[in-house]
Amino acid sequence: MIKIAVDAMGGDNAPHVEVLGAVQAVREYQVGVILVGSELRLREELKKHDVEGLAIEIVQASEVITMQEAVATALRKKKDSSIRVAAKLVRDGKAAGVVSAGNTGACMAISKQVVGKLPMVDRPALAAVIPTSKGRRALLLDVGANVDCKPAHLLQFAIMGEIFSRSILGISRPKVGLLSIGEEEGKGNELTKEAFPLLKAAPFNFVGNIEGRDVFKGDVDVIVCDGFVGNVALKLGEGLTEMFTILLKKDLSKHLSSKIGALLSRQAFQSFKAKVDYSETGGAPLLGVQGVVIICHGSSNAKAIKNAIRVASECCLSQVNEHIEEGVKALHFLQRPASENLLIN
Amino acid sequence: MIKIAVDAMGGDNAPHVEVLGAVQAVREYQVGVILVGSELRLREELKKHDVEGLAIEIVQASEVITMQEAVATALRKKKDSSIRVAAKLVRDGKAAGVVSAGNTGACMAISKQVVGKLPMVDRPALAAVIPTSKGRRALLLDVGANVDCKPAHLLQFAIMGEIFSRSILGISRPKVGLLSIGEEEGKGNELTKEAFPLLKAAPFNFVGNIEGRDVFKGDVDVIVCDGFVGNVALKLGEGLTEMFTILLKKDLSKHLSSKIGALLSRQAFQSFKAKVDYSETGGAPLLGVQGVVIICHGSSNAKAIKNAIRVASECCLSQVNEHIEEGVKALHFLQRPASENLLIN
Repeated sequence: MIKIAVDAMGGDNAPHVEVLGAVQAVREYQVGVILVGSELRLREELKKHDVEGLAIEIVQASEVITMQEAVATALRKKKDSSIRVAAKLVRDGKAAGVVSAGNTGACMAISKQVVGKLPMVDRPALAAVIPTSKGRRALLLDVGANVDCKPAHLLQFAIMGEIFSRSILGISRPKVGLLSIGEEEGKGNELTKEAFPLLKAAPFNFVGNIEGRDVFKGDVDVIVCDGFVGNVALKLGEGLTEMFTILLKKDLSKHLSSKIGALLSRQAFQSFKAKVDYSETGGAPLLGVQGVVIICHGSSNAKAIKNAIRVASECCLSQVNEHIEEGVKALHFLQRPASENLLIN
Repeated sequence: MIKIAVDAMGGDNAPHVEVLGAVQAVREYQVGVILVGSELRLREELKKHDVEGLAIEIVQASEVITMQEAVATALRKKKDSSIRVAAKLVRDGKAAGVVSAGNTGACMAISKQVVGKLPMVDRPALAAVIPTSKGRRALLLDVGANVDCKPAHLLQFAIMGEIFSRSILGISRPKVGLLSIGEEEGKGNELTKEAFPLLKAAPFNFVGNIEGRDVFKGDVDVIVCDGFVGNVALKLGEGLTEMFTILLKKDLSKHLSSKIGALLSRQAFQSFKAKVDYSETGGAPLLGVQGVVIICHGSSNAKAIKNAIRVASECCLSQVNEHIEEGVKALHFLQRPASENLLIN
């Protein structure tokens, strides 16, 4: 049985939601979970559930990296943090993947350091699963693992995202788009203009540049950008969702008729909220590292943790990493001269 | 009386909304309008309104640059386009500003070429007025005039935006933020990391880095970024707004109770839509050029055109350009060594 290590101490609501999510995942899916963190607290938390016969273990870690902590310091000082111990389980083959709702920067750095990159992958990329108007989910990457990128990095992001989209999101021939500021090939900044021909020549379904307004349309399945742009875009989406909720609530509570209206349409609102809720998608995979790493939002609920464990296990079953290794290797041989030139620039 | 030239042929709904917006503006504000475009069509359109005694003139232009047209070709071939003729009126002192809902790229290029930059401004910037949760409007710039920027450009964007925010949006001491991927000074890409100390040393209220999720919060009044990031962010916001509307409508029409709910809460929805509607804000000023240039969304309605004419006239009355000239000059003398070093890199 596939075992997933869960950093049980990192999130805003730890360890409550991590333990609950793990219990639900083990009950619902064919997966085992290793909870990593304070053994004492985790035993306490597990007592709340009937875990008789469930494939749940605990591994002790004495420290926690907080959300506010500077990554460099935390990495140097906290050698027994729950995320590091969880990553070591993956490195040592005791777990196939790791799920964390902790400090994203620390989680990415430790994954790269402890678990290591896949061969020939230059830069692992954090991929966000986002909702679209058409209902199907799209993948936006990189959303923060790499701020200053070269064209050849974007090419690798594209191939990794395409494989995840096919294997996990179940899209048979994913459309890959380059996030830019105009649809024509010549539009964009230096980075996207140089990346465009690389993506065009790659062995996947590249549909060209797409603009910000197309990200949520659902016409493109894999949206590639550098980690600065992707991070701004992802967080802007979160902020705008929050603003919509606040403004709508304010307006709806102003008048009696709209209060009644809001009550009557509550079901619709809830179904709508579920569609745009990032936590429903089960976290963001860090693609390009050994093992499987799924990073969840700090404010994740148990459902998000459960879904992240499911996605981690699906990545193992679908051999996402093996496919990424092959894909990146094929690209490397196909495009060596061009990509190497661009990396030198 | 201040006269504003209106490119009456450029928008998706031209010349109908341009003429209607102009008539409304001239009636409501102390402003005159010169409509630029096909004299025949504009005379026709004006017949629909009672314009007796209104300060509305027509200036003939035989060509129109369409939305789809490549900017470089359009600039070379269409010498008598409505936007170019309107810009010439500004250059020749016959109008104080120009409003256009036409091809944004062409409008920016022609403004820089025909009207020219203000002294010491390196790069004019397109500034979008955006809604926030707190009700007050914020300014995001640059949203597409400059894709690859140097740190010193961001500094100029900041000072220009700060002046517009104070003079036109009526914010007494605007908070200026740098759009990045973490709040700490060390977070960001090469560009923002180098721009941070320049902004910190500048004579305005710099509040540091802000993240994508803070853009719509209303805590920061002027949000500075390069034109690639700003354009992606702005269009992503538009796309997400559209997705919200589509998904909510779908969900609300599913059940009878929520249909009734939607009817009852219609007033709230309308008030909400007005708040997030970009067209209510009257277009985006292109800051840093001689004269006043306001670029409206292609799908602008008459109200947006009217508001843009109002904003253009307010820019003249508040002497925004004079203040920008002084501000940029002061920066130049204050920070010459630092900014010149950074420009050379």
